[in-house]
Amino acid sequence: MKSLVRCRILPWRRHFSTTARRRVTRSIEELPDRVKASYVQRPSNTLLSLHWPSPPRNILITKKKRTPGITESLIEYSTHLSTTYPSINIILDPDSAAEIHEQLSFPVYTWQKPSGNASPQYLPDKTDLVCTLGGDGTILRASSLFAHSATVPPVLSFAMGTIGFLGEWKFKEYKRAFREVYMSGAADTYAKLEFPDHQPSIPLTSPDDPLDKPLSYADIRGKAMGSNRTARILLRNRLKVGVFSPTGQRIDALPAGDTYALNEVIVHRGSSPHLKIIDVFIGGRFLTEGVADGMIISSPTGSTAYSLSSGGSIVHPLVPSLLLTPICPRSLSFRPLVLPAEIPITLRFGDKNRGHEVEVSIDGKRISDGIGPGMEVRVLGEDVKNEAGEWCGGVPSIVRGVDGLEDREDDHWVGGLNALLKFNYPFGDQDGNP
Amino acid sequence: MKSLVRCRILPWRRHFSTTARRRVTRSIEELPDRVKASYVQRPSNTLLSLHWPSPPRNILITKKKRTPGITESLIEYSTHLSTTYPSINIILDPDSAAEIHEQLSFPVYTWQKPSGNASPQYLPDKTDLVCTLGGDGTILRASSLFAHSATVPPVLSFAMGTIGFLGEWKFKEYKRAFREVYMSGAADTYAKLEFPDHQPSIPLTSPDDPLDKPLSYADIRGKAMGSNRTARILLRNRLKVGVFSPTGQRIDALPAGDTYALNEVIVHRGSSPHLKIIDVFIGGRFLTEGVADGMIISSPTGSTAYSLSSGGSIVHPLVPSLLLTPICPRSLSFRPLVLPAEIPITLRFGDKNRGHEVEVSIDGKRISDGIGPGMEVRVLGEDVKNEAGEWCGGVPSIVRGVDGLEDREDDHWVGGLNALLKFNYPFGDQDGNP
Amino acid sequence: MKSLVRCRILPWRRHFSTTARRRVTRSIEELPDRVKASYVQRPSNTLLSLHWPSPPRNILITKKKRTPGITESLIEYSTHLSTTYPSINIILDPDSAAEIHEQLSFPVYTWQKPSGNASPQYLPDKTDLVCTLGGDGTILRASSLFAHSATVPPVLSFAMGTIGFLGEWKFKEYKRAFREVYMSGAADTYAKLEFPDHQPSIPLTSPDDPLDKPLSYADIRGKAMGSNRTARILLRNRLKVGVFSPTGQRIDALPAGDTYALNEVIVHRGSSPHLKIIDVFIGGRFLTEGVADGMIISSPTGSTAYSLSSGGSIVHPLVPSLLLTPICPRSLSFRPLVLPAEIPITLRFGDKNRGHEVEVSIDGKRISDGIGPGMEVRVLGEDVKNEAGEWCGGVPSIVRGVDGLEDREDDHWVGGLNALLKFNYPFGDQDGNP
Amino acid sequence: MKSLVRCRILPWRRHFSTTARRRVTRSIEELPDRVKASYVQRPSNTLLSLHWPSPPRNILITKKKRTPGITESLIEYSTHLSTTYPSINIILDPDSAAEIHEQLSFPVYTWQKPSGNASPQYLPDKTDLVCTLGGDGTILRASSLFAHSATVPPVLSFAMGTIGFLGEWKFKEYKRAFREVYMSGAADTYAKLEFPDHQPSIPLTSPDDPLDKPLSYADIRGKAMGSNRTARILLRNRLKVGVFSPTGQRIDALPAGDTYALNEVIVHRGSSPHLKIIDVFIGGRFLTEGVADGMIISSPTGSTAYSLSSGGSIVHPLVPSLLLTPICPRSLSFRPLVLPAEIPITLRFGDKNRGHEVEVSIDGKRISDGIGPGMEVRVLGEDVKNEAGEWCGGVPSIVRGVDGLEDREDDHWVGGLNALLKFNYPFGDQDGNP
Repeated sequence: MKSLVRCRILPWRRHFSTTARRRVTRSIEELPDRVKASYVQRPSNTLLSLHWPSPPRNILITKKKRTPGITESLIEYSTHLSTTYPSINIILDPDSAAEIHEQLSFPVYTWQKPSGNASPQYLPDKTDLVCTLGGDGTILRASSLFAHSATVPPVLSFAMGTIGFLGEWKFKEYKRAFREVYMSGAADTYAKLEFPDHQPSIPLTSPDDPLDKPLSYADIRGKAMGSNRTARILLRNRLKVGVFSPTGQRIDALPAGDTYALNEVIVHRGSSPHLKIIDVFIGGRFLTEGVADGMIISSPTGSTAYSLSSGGSIVHPLVPSLLLTPICPRSLSFRPLVLPAEIPITLRFGDKNRGHEVEVSIDGKRISDGIGPGMEVRVLGEDVKNEAGEWCGGVPSIVRGVDGLEDREDDHWVGGLNALLKFNYPFGDQDGNP
Repeated sequence: MKSLVRCRILPWRRHFSTTARRRVTRSIEELPDRVKASYVQRPSNTLLSLHWPSPPRNILITKKKRTPGITESLIEYSTHLSTTYPSINIILDPDSAAEIHEQLSFPVYTWQKPSGNASPQYLPDKTDLVCTLGGDGTILRASSLFAHSATVPPVLSFAMGTIGFLGEWKFKEYKRAFREVYMSGAADTYAKLEFPDHQPSIPLTSPDDPLDKPLSYADIRGKAMGSNRTARILLRNRLKVGVFSPTGQRIDALPAGDTYALNEVIVHRGSSPHLKIIDVFIGGRFLTEGVADGMIISSPTGSTAYSLSSGGSIVHPLVPSLLLTPICPRSLSFRPLVLPAEIPITLRFGDKNRGHEVEVSIDGKRISDGIGPGMEVRVLGEDVKNEAGEWCGGVPSIVRGVDGLEDREDDHWVGGLNALLKFNYPFGDQDGNP
Repeated sequence: MKSLVRCRILPWRRHFSTTARRRVTRSIEELPDRVKASYVQRPSNTLLSLHWPSPPRNILITKKKRTPGITESLIEYSTHLSTTYPSINIILDPDSAAEIHEQLSFPVYTWQKPSGNASPQYLPDKTDLVCTLGGDGTILRASSLFAHSATVPPVLSFAMGTIGFLGEWKFKEYKRAFREVYMSGAADTYAKLEFPDHQPSIPLTSPDDPLDKPLSYADIRGKAMGSNRTARILLRNRLKVGVFSPTGQRIDALPAGDTYALNEVIVHRGSSPHLKIIDVFIGGRFLTEGVADGMIISSPTGSTAYSLSSGGSIVHPLVPSLLLTPICPRSLSFRPLVLPAEIPITLRFGDKNRGHEVEVSIDGKRISDGIGPGMEVRVLGEDVKNEAGEWCGGVPSIVRGVDGLEDREDDHWVGGLNALLKFNYPFGDQDGNP
Repeated sequence: MKSLVRCRILPWRRHFSTTARRRVTRSIEELPDRVKASYVQRPSNTLLSLHWPSPPRNILITKKKRTPGITESLIEYSTHLSTTYPSINIILDPDSAAEIHEQLSFPVYTWQKPSGNASPQYLPDKTDLVCTLGGDGTILRASSLFAHSATVPPVLSFAMGTIGFLGEWKFKEYKRAFREVYMSGAADTYAKLEFPDHQPSIPLTSPDDPLDKPLSYADIRGKAMGSNRTARILLRNRLKVGVFSPTGQRIDALPAGDTYALNEVIVHRGSSPHLKIIDVFIGGRFLTEGVADGMIISSPTGSTAYSLSSGGSIVHPLVPSLLLTPICPRSLSFRPLVLPAEIPITLRFGDKNRGHEVEVSIDGKRISDGIGPGMEVRVLGEDVKNEAGEWCGGVPSIVRGVDGLEDREDDHWVGGLNALLKFNYPFGDQDGNP
């Protein structure tokens, strides 16, 4: 596969110094096929190790919207990758590509905006790694690009300004972080790599920074970071979702596929003043009729999002489960439920709602066509191991360690609870009885 | 009454320089009778103004237990009062009196510890003002000393270290705070006062501080702080509580009186492993059978104490109400209730609990004798106006204004919510949809 | 006033047998002026007594929408009133009047539908008593007809099918219930009444039922029900609401008036996917910035409606208070608050929401014009006593007693908690420790 | 093993008609060794199938305490088993054995009460099947008898009066239920069995009931119920608990073993008036300092017990997780947590609690010695598969199907939610907007 890789890369590298071609946006269809990472269980650890069969090449970078300075950061980051890792191709979403490609000295790849709720074509087949610049919402949107794909590339997230819950890195760490991800895998893979000679066409931003120099064979040979230094992956299980019309037609996706959600599926009254009457089935068996503003089925990852606002428990991302949380139920006794990931949940928006509208959204993307009485939402936890026992599903999130404690596995989650949720801030003074 | 006051004061003042007498603890029975403050409604304001008919003389000071430096603060404060306001008598609880009276150059007054749940004799008839050094627990204990009295003296609270919820002052403000309270009332009352000549027998702690000099007629004449500067009072309604044995005997107090609680009455399983079965009656009508660890009836003041921990709402101290909050109920649908202060609530610990123990505590004081199946706890909100329409009940808490905003009435409560309860700390970043 | 009344009534009574005129709908403007009830505090009771200065004449009847059989019930009830109490005029809303006036043998009065959020003209000046056929929603809509009036007529509610929380009567009791309300007041008022001779033009529905016969002077003389049998009134405090545009213009009502709400004011994101950022002020002082789906300010009556679904406490209607309850807040620590009715609350929808929409609704009626960033909602509890100390505001709800226990005052509320809210349904068996 | 079994059984069967020996209680030490059931995953099903390698012989029966009629039911049930299944040995707890052995015509086996928190000796090595007569508490106590054993026998539970949550059968079904359990396994196992001739010494209770006749080889041969009719097992994961003194000594059990809990471990202030300060560690990492009445670590099975009363979510028994639920925390923001079963949780009762007492209880059994500041409680989810991939841990609960729907797997749990927890009882009428 290695030679194949070089073959595919060379064509555009030849054009690299041609200004006229450089600033063009190209279609991701032209990119070499995806390099699929594998994940290895770490001994006595709940996180996985990231292993590349060969170095990643096609890097999708997404950014937060409407944030001062974010475009500059995107340019800085893209330029660093392109300069330091010459074999790397940069993929941007259509809007970002249009916005910045003229300011870049290398080509960017992008896709055509799909219509409706469809996912971008080719993207899952071409993306080796996703990098996000932003917060949890940016990760959610990036993950939505793969909402109809069973396999999501690893995601490396940088927080910009506000700190998110999903284990992001600080942007100022981007060189070290990317190097760690890039090098993650068995030493011999990298030892056997050959690198083309490289003459950078643009000046280095920080000539003295060893992380800033173009990577060469000499840099790599025998220097892979070893199993202790592989990037650590938290595999975030997604929900497998189907939305069906009263006649049993899928209305969330192309007929053949499932939709995957990282956070949650929400059924909500929206601007309708009427409470919704939602029948809930567990494993095909009727559980209850919920009369409420809406209903949430959430993954553990989504347990700290809307479900939490609605009174749900906080569920650790490693608990294989689905959360059923009602939104403002007309009941004193609809306590949130935590259900097995492998038992399907169905929300049926029955005929009692006749004449009333409802909204369905999957990870914040609203489904508009075909929603109405008779509709069903069916949800199941995603399998994260294939039949061969390999980890394959979920959103593989690259987790940052706490400085000096990189091997502590739960830092990101415990830290998030305390720093972001302001979990368990005590009240009152300590003087006196309860 | 003024001349009577002078008569009563003079005897011990004559002995003031007599070391042998000075360090004696005396009985509060010897003190002049209480000077009762009155409270005046402020226009367009929810707080009341404090008015002394004549300056307060008998000052009870209580302190927090087991706190480093607290004894030194008590000595400093007592000495300041005694030096600066020569007509003032210091009352301490028996333990504090025994602990520090040898270190004071003036006599202290105290009482004999009563047995059981009885209140100290004479104390309500002799105390003009209560000062507490500590937090909310210290205020609660001070207020418990008047648990069988319909009229509690005004309470001036100083926080020591931790900040409490009940509107305390900082200890370093004690000179200004006490002066404000002492002078609170009509200018003419103070203008007509005569002061004895005063030769301080101990050196002033801060000779240049005008608040530290002995107060003389010249200091006072015409200088009363005016109605704008009167101390501001939040009248905290108490609960009127009766605990009755299966045979209808009172077991919380002497036969003739009610017990008053500032925070709450709690019925709790204590160390019994069995849930308690508690029948709840509202206005004499059966409401529900609670099966729970226990049950709380709380005042609005107590709504930020144990009731809050048990899931109760936060109720502003000016809402005339009683809170019924279950503790760990065996029910999904026992939502906390907020009930009118004027409708009595009865908790009946019925025969279904046969063989099981239960604990009853009023403001943290446990009642031990006669508790068992058949027992009833009856609670009603205290009347805070007498038949003449005068404000008379409750715990008159002297409220501190925010610096520069002394006339803002709700600062203490709103500030407490935010600073102490960490009310509404938001979570997550702002990037993305719910 | 009595003679004036007869004068005004006579004209149409003369036309009574004229079929051509009979089935006409007339304008409520033609009706005699309202007979205003007064309310008297009952000794040792939290409910009030209803007293008519002279018998009520103008009766507004509203019905639930889209309910099988409800139109028949409306016809039956109207006919009973018109037949049995010949001096009574029936008022219906425009839709109901159009729907049924052809089936009635007497004229009905109605009004012209106002535009926007305006209230029907003349209605508060002409309506002596409101009768509702339906549930809590019907009462809410009837009360909304008086949303810009400081004085609401007494409301007599009949449950149709489902049982509501607001103290309704059963429809089959309507004859007894109306008679009790009609006769409520001092015996001498009724003793002095003169009744016209009456020849019913339609056959009696139940000739043997004494409650079905036309009322004559002989029936009434000296037979008023006495103070023990007056109708019992629960005065439900309303919220006084103002919604203001960024430039300080009122957008909820005509410039001159307040809007009154029986249940609640809700600010909600509606179909906008973005959380709303709402600044909350108490008594003019900043309390907190709520980031949430929305915010509810509720009366105690509304505490069992949307506020309850959102996690608020249950507040008895006699506790003078306002509830502040967040809807799905992005915070673990935004506990619902119960605040004094007399301290104003302001919700400010600030500039941070720029570009985002929001919905405001008052008792379920949505305000559409002028809503946006910069808007403020200001709420205060309504005064229910005027300066003369008379009970005057609120929604005077005629409360049904439990059979045989008509003098028990809290039955309706306690009964509602248990029967409607399924309050405190215990779970689990009784076998074992917690 | 079969011949061994017969050898062991024969001795007492020879004595069966000897009155003098019959009514003796014997030691369980004399019993043949346990027949260990195995559990087989059912295709497309979340429940397991029970398989006996050879028919169960040693049956432990426990009963609820202090319940009218319960002793009679125990006698009836024991007699049925002994009469119908002659090779069966009845084991009773020491109190029950003493209470009823004189009324039985066959010997009963029992053990010596252990001291302290120790488990009965030999019991896990001798018990093939546990039957409980009572509710959830009775199951909990039966399960506690195996609190120091990694392998619990299958549990068949009969509800007596009140219905429990843990999937019990009705007592009147006992013949059919036991037969189903007894016959559960591969047909060939039973086909090869030989049965001794049997002459019942006591009259049959219902001579016409086929389930009441003594079982013989002829009854069994080829008649095993088949894989469709095997008993269905819900394997309830337990908690693996260690309680350690400040010096690291185990104080919950013998030095060598773990304690297992079916429901929960609770740390509680008990009758101490002081809130407890409990440090919580997840995976060895500090999470938070809880200041509360106590703290619960619960299994999913325990999620509907005390954790639910304290505000925890309801977690399905098949979600491999631990629940951390605070009891009345002094915090607005200590939301309950659901954590992975495989990450250990430590509760440290630190030195800040100096001088204060605390209670620790495991499934309702209180640990008394060595509890105090410095103590630690460490909890981990039990492994329910051994290294060979066989299901082995947990409490194997025999689940009753709904009549006619025996193959529906979730009936017991969904049914329990609705029938026992009164889950999601709606409130209010349906007339009107939220």
